[in-house]
Amino acid sequence: MTFTDAERAAMRRALALAATPGVPLGPNPRVGCVLLAPDGEEVAEGFHRGAGSPHAEVDALREAGEAARGTTAVVTLEPCNHTGRTGPCAEALLAAGVRRVVFAQPDTNPAAAGGAETLRAAGVEVEGGLLADEARALNRSWTFAVEHGRPFVTWKFATTLDGRSAAADGTSRWVSGRAARLDTHRLRGLCDTMLVGTGTVEVDDPALTVRDETDQPLPRQPLRAVMGLRDLDPGRRVLDGSAETVLLRTRDPHEALATLFARDRQHVFLEGGPTLAASFLAAGLVDEVVAYVAPMLLGAGRSAVGDLGITTIADARHLHLVSAAVVGSGADANVRLTLRPSVEPDATTTPEES
Amino acid sequence: MTFTDAERAAMRRALALAATPGVPLGPNPRVGCVLLAPDGEEVAEGFHRGAGSPHAEVDALREAGEAARGTTAVVTLEPCNHTGRTGPCAEALLAAGVRRVVFAQPDTNPAAAGGAETLRAAGVEVEGGLLADEARALNRSWTFAVEHGRPFVTWKFATTLDGRSAAADGTSRWVSGRAARLDTHRLRGLCDTMLVGTGTVEVDDPALTVRDETDQPLPRQPLRAVMGLRDLDPGRRVLDGSAETVLLRTRDPHEALATLFARDRQHVFLEGGPTLAASFLAAGLVDEVVAYVAPMLLGAGRSAVGDLGITTIADARHLHLVSAAVVGSGADANVRLTLRPSVEPDATTTPEES
Repeated sequence: MTFTDAERAAMRRALALAATPGVPLGPNPRVGCVLLAPDGEEVAEGFHRGAGSPHAEVDALREAGEAARGTTAVVTLEPCNHTGRTGPCAEALLAAGVRRVVFAQPDTNPAAAGGAETLRAAGVEVEGGLLADEARALNRSWTFAVEHGRPFVTWKFATTLDGRSAAADGTSRWVSGRAARLDTHRLRGLCDTMLVGTGTVEVDDPALTVRDETDQPLPRQPLRAVMGLRDLDPGRRVLDGSAETVLLRTRDPHEALATLFARDRQHVFLEGGPTLAASFLAAGLVDEVVAYVAPMLLGAGRSAVGDLGITTIADARHLHLVSAAVVGSGADANVRLTLRPSVEPDATTTPEES
Repeated sequence: MTFTDAERAAMRRALALAATPGVPLGPNPRVGCVLLAPDGEEVAEGFHRGAGSPHAEVDALREAGEAARGTTAVVTLEPCNHTGRTGPCAEALLAAGVRRVVFAQPDTNPAAAGGAETLRAAGVEVEGGLLADEARALNRSWTFAVEHGRPFVTWKFATTLDGRSAAADGTSRWVSGRAARLDTHRLRGLCDTMLVGTGTVEVDDPALTVRDETDQPLPRQPLRAVMGLRDLDPGRRVLDGSAETVLLRTRDPHEALATLFARDRQHVFLEGGPTLAASFLAAGLVDEVVAYVAPMLLGAGRSAVGDLGITTIADARHLHLVSAAVVGSGADANVRLTLRPSVEPDATTTPEES
């Protein structure tokens, strides 16, 4: 692959365009596009503004008009090959007379893939892979979902220092501090789905909405998903209509994620209950763990994690620690640990140590 | 209180002398002394090198000889008034003809207090409190023990992310990573006593020695204290003679600490078992908590903390988070949380939040 300096600079610009603040997180990936004249001068630029609006390439082509002929299209994602609510970008680029296409991340989504081939077959120069990692990072959940055929799962839980998520009498408000709870709302807002079990809905009756610092709901709310076989009391807050809610009539994590994926869900925020968490962990369906550890001891009460079928230390489920951060300050300080699954336990032990 | 610039500078020097590397941590506080001529020039300096060796004042007076007459003694701790293995410093200062004494921290140890009064009664100018906080920090454990009439207690425990200190079958090697275990040895070395329960000795048979990175024992070992009413198997490692061991035939934390204080112990490193930890916590006798949180889940097994008699969240034992640090790296990374007791729970809750 050979790219010119102008193409590299244009790709950085396209990535910045894709990340334009205010673009709604939706089922579609964020994409940016820059059209370059043969001399490397920018002719036009565009980006995708969310489902139903033009793709980035079409946005740039419209701005360029006739000037698009003979240009190089620099785009953060391989141009799509399918007709959804908008026509295929590969055809639009051909129709506009674009001479060369440089893209960052290949589109492996089966419904959209093949754009590069279509363009090449029509005689357009196509090269991919320029700043591909940056493009993948821009659409982390979309990329994961497309590549794995299921949403990315973040499991969040709050725990005391001694691993309790509720006291012996079931009370749990609040294990985590105020700053940690606000931080949780921030993370919820980065996902497109919140998932809890029917048990959590019956016991805690959470609203499962994303709210700001003044406790006002944000304009865009993730889908509220409740899984399990138990019937819900119709008075529960998740059924209040303040955001979309889906009931997943299954206890099988695979089945629940398949249903959510079919609904274009890419990032599930799993918040509900030690048993549900244990079933996702046991199925290997937790991709990220966010634990808020409160500087508090209970000595008894509900464990943060249900039974994983582990009986001896050698079988412990090891995770990779990504980061540890203090959230809040003073008496409100909690520790947020972010972890990823790990298959390699620490092998560096000294048997004689004690 | 009025102090000259020369006295302030001399006190900083005295603090540095007191903190001379290599001075053994012992029952005696670290003390430094500088003698100043009336024009502010330094005449001599000294510091205490540990139990049985001369006190800092005497060390400086010896260096000064006849030149001590008419000087100002700048010393980090109020000169002692008692005769132990060495004579009282107040008398030595008088005998040497010192004209003025400036000290940092008052000596509230009943056996040694009163030096300032003795000196004043003999016509010496005495002023205290110069850089007192720095002096207290220099001998944190000694100061705590003298002021509270018992040793400072650091409770250390290792836990999984879900609050387990051992798996369901009792195995616990290793919950914490290698770097965390080395870090534990470092902290042990800062204390003068390690305390566990007889149950921990019977089950885990720890050596309770402080070892370096190559697993070699350090030259100076803390006292190994085992408390409880159970008889120990004579083959246990704590009885191997590699360090001093004391058996405390009690289950009462107050009684155990009183015995240790009577043996000049100032900093206890409590390592043993959830039940022992719970009894110290319930008695309000934990002054610092060090928790190593391993990025690992067990889902079942022994809790890190025993029953505290807490049944509802409002009664949770709140701690103040002092610091959170990652110890080790990669698969060996653990999080070390340091906390202090707190009596004020977080009052900033938002009742409607969920």
